[in-house]
Amino acid sequence: RTTSEIVAGRLPVLISISDTALEESISLAKVAADSGADAVVLATPYYFPAGQTELIQYVQTIVPKLPLPVLLYNMPSLTKVWFEIETLKTLSDLKGVIGIKDSSGDLAYYEELCSLKNERLDWTFFIGPEEKMIRSISLGGDGGVNGGANIYPKLFVDAFNAARVGDEAQQSLLQEKIEAFGRIYEIGKYASRFIKGTKCAASILGLCDDRMAEPFNRFYPEDRDKVKRILDELDLEAWS
Amino acid sequence: RTTSEIVAGRLPVLISISDTALEESISLAKVAADSGADAVVLATPYYFPAGQTELIQYVQTIVPKLPLPVLLYNMPSLTKVWFEIETLKTLSDLKGVIGIKDSSGDLAYYEELCSLKNERLDWTFFIGPEEKMIRSISLGGDGGVNGGANIYPKLFVDAFNAARVGDEAQQSLLQEKIEAFGRIYEIGKYASRFIKGTKCAASILGLCDDRMAEPFNRFYPEDRDKVKRILDELDLEAWS
Repeated sequence: RTTSEIVAGRLPVLISISDTALEESISLAKVAADSGADAVVLATPYYFPAGQTELIQYVQTIVPKLPLPVLLYNMPSLTKVWFEIETLKTLSDLKGVIGIKDSSGDLAYYEELCSLKNERLDWTFFIGPEEKMIRSISLGGDGGVNGGANIYPKLFVDAFNAARVGDEAQQSLLQEKIEAFGRIYEIGKYASRFIKGTKCAASILGLCDDRMAEPFNRFYPEDRDKVKRILDELDLEAWS
Repeated sequence: RTTSEIVAGRLPVLISISDTALEESISLAKVAADSGADAVVLATPYYFPAGQTELIQYVQTIVPKLPLPVLLYNMPSLTKVWFEIETLKTLSDLKGVIGIKDSSGDLAYYEELCSLKNERLDWTFFIGPEEKMIRSISLGGDGGVNGGANIYPKLFVDAFNAARVGDEAQQSLLQEKIEAFGRIYEIGKYASRFIKGTKCAASILGLCDDRMAEPFNRFYPEDRDKVKRILDELDLEAWS
């Protein structure tokens, strides 16, 4: 709700409703709608892995029950399940689906995704891994949902614009900066280092506290110092 | 609640409260307590994988907030995270924890688990994969939480008793029957075939409907026929 108030309609607000239980996802979507969100984001259920036929039925069942449009979310490293291309072709019949975010990091898959514009011209295709965002635009992508954009939004907006207009010099300059910033994600262990590194960097810049939701810890001081050194070295303040 | 009423105190009733959010698990535990359950079962959070230090803190945080004793649940194939032995040693300080169920299928790990009786004589050690239940007793285990026991409870009770008294002839006879029954788990695809096969067999015996929670489908008729053929061939009715 606070986010929606701050954004005040200037940008769409998307809220994740991913859960392992259909009913819980529906409840979360109602909260999102009541809080002023513009759309919800739905990953594949992530405890027992579903088959593609089941996934199709699941999305067909849940989407008409949701009060907001749905961006699908492909996150196989955490959910164990892919939205396969044929599955998405079938789901392109559903009016309530508005596109997909892909965090697989597999650009061959992403390119196939973007070819789904043949089925649904109105679908939006976002990419998760930020070091692949520039490249993804040339494959037909519409942009990124990138953690680093919480820290240096202008860096990612400029990178996106450079990719859109095909400014190669600017693209390689900004790609280099995004990759240098990405060294913060090599600190720490486990997949959670991505969210910890992001929160840590945000707190170093004074944007928010770095307290994590259970069961995760913020970085210990030594890891925080490593993040700080990277941010200091890069001096990306102009892009914040 | 219905389960607790039917069981009527003859056996302990354990309810899973596994969720990715601490607050949701606490809510589920309250429902379990209000419904007459005797204990709750808690797996590691299963979206972003936690480190062992985080897992320790997580269990230390949640256990005192729960209204019932807690059986930990090691299910790495679905949660991506193990309860490592050192982690459990640390957690053995917690009075509210009463033991662990292990579904890893790794008997070397299970044997190490059982050695934790040196720390906590009162802990109970259960095994998930039913074809390893007899073997697990000789490693110091206390029994199984086996899907097949929903179908042929007497088979598993007899197997457990044979293992406890070391009746080798009976153990190999029943091991063979358990493995033959286990062919139902080779039908279908994905990890969900275990729960589908169990529900399907239960419905063939008239115990319950085989409708699955979303996003899963019951077996198609051809897979159901395969399950039926196995059950018919084995003729395990005496153990139901």
